[in-house]
Amino acid sequence: MSKGVVSEMDDAIKIIEIKKSVFAANEEDADRLRSSLRQKGTFLLNLMSSPGAGKTTTLTRLLPLLKDEFRIAVMEADIDSDVDAVKIAEKTGVESIQLHTGGMCHLDAEMTAQGLAGLSEDAPYDLIVLENVGNLVCPAEFDTGASRNAMILSVPEGHDKPLKYPLMFQVCDLVIVNKTDVMPYFDFNMDLCIEYVHRRNPKAEIIPVCAKTGEGIDRLADWVRRAVNEWKS
Amino acid sequence: MSKGVVSEMDDAIKIIEIKKSVFAANEEDADRLRSSLRQKGTFLLNLMSSPGAGKTTTLTRLLPLLKDEFRIAVMEADIDSDVDAVKIAEKTGVESIQLHTGGMCHLDAEMTAQGLAGLSEDAPYDLIVLENVGNLVCPAEFDTGASRNAMILSVPEGHDKPLKYPLMFQVCDLVIVNKTDVMPYFDFNMDLCIEYVHRRNPKAEIIPVCAKTGEGIDRLADWVRRAVNEWKS
Repeated sequence: MSKGVVSEMDDAIKIIEIKKSVFAANEEDADRLRSSLRQKGTFLLNLMSSPGAGKTTTLTRLLPLLKDEFRIAVMEADIDSDVDAVKIAEKTGVESIQLHTGGMCHLDAEMTAQGLAGLSEDAPYDLIVLENVGNLVCPAEFDTGASRNAMILSVPEGHDKPLKYPLMFQVCDLVIVNKTDVMPYFDFNMDLCIEYVHRRNPKAEIIPVCAKTGEGIDRLADWVRRAVNEWKS
Repeated sequence: MSKGVVSEMDDAIKIIEIKKSVFAANEEDADRLRSSLRQKGTFLLNLMSSPGAGKTTTLTRLLPLLKDEFRIAVMEADIDSDVDAVKIAEKTGVESIQLHTGGMCHLDAEMTAQGLAGLSEDAPYDLIVLENVGNLVCPAEFDTGASRNAMILSVPEGHDKPLKYPLMFQVCDLVIVNKTDVMPYFDFNMDLCIEYVHRRNPKAEIIPVCAKTGEGIDRLADWVRRAVNEWKS
């Protein structure tokens, strides 16, 4: 497995340029990666959403609630820029690296493995969060090898998104509905949203949160805590 | 050029299942399509954005201001569902067809041509709007053959998006900043947004609008009017 080109930007943030391997059999790679993570007792959470739905802000609220229990790292995938990895490191103190996808619209298992190889090698992580590229389409098509998939749907995007981006909702174990503080200013119907999500995926758990105010983050932390502990047992 | 499978859902809405041609040389196809449209005097506007940024709602505000001057049609691309084409037809009376991309995350020139072939054949359209798949990444990579590219960035997504999705902002002649009515509830800095957009694309025009209230839609209509008339002259 080839390793990405690693460049140090500053002490806090490592940037890894990922090249996509066209020939990788992604599903096999993903299963292999998942097994390897299970052996190490590491839970990998693949977090997806549209651009600007609040993935990074949600993590800055969530991680402080978990970092005393778990050894955590975050991999921030982005086409360009390192604003997210900087924000995670500054706001939570959690180890954070930036993955540059070089224009790619998603991560696959091979790219995820390249990212994992960029983390501190001696660390037995309990929880690694992969913040995928902001995109409701392509990331849903590629198994990253994650233990669980989660997505954030933000209130301003509208409750009809499960109708329009079905695969994303089918592959996610957890749907986080973010920006509930602005519900009064948008025509967002939470009951309809829940109905549409469950039409795509009856087993999906749905947790409304407001990453800005912190509302609902306790419940989200409980979900992650339970998932990590189940994975390790 | 193969034609998509056309199925009639009801009188108002036609659904076209598009199959992507893997072998098409997209740039040549795009240039050919653009020339053909210019000969017919048809301006094709490719409208892109994240999911839920307000493409359809903006069109329901914009088209009534233009439909007495121009013969207009709308092609609504989506992975699944026909909610957008129904909404356009119901709210504006403008001819509207739905293009199903079959999971594809973008449209290319061949797929666009398939869509155009599904419009009324006898119609000399002045303006055709292609509402692309909701995605800030992949649609920017494929020239659809459009006369001009426009995108909508909505306030809740944040002013940092030009830093994170550079290509989208590079390829667009027009950036519409939508949902300005909720500016007070989000940390959105319009000056910074304009600076970031122009860092990617100094020539991009930026028009703030609120599709919900109609604010700024006049200015948007002026831009489209000018662009269509320049194209036809």
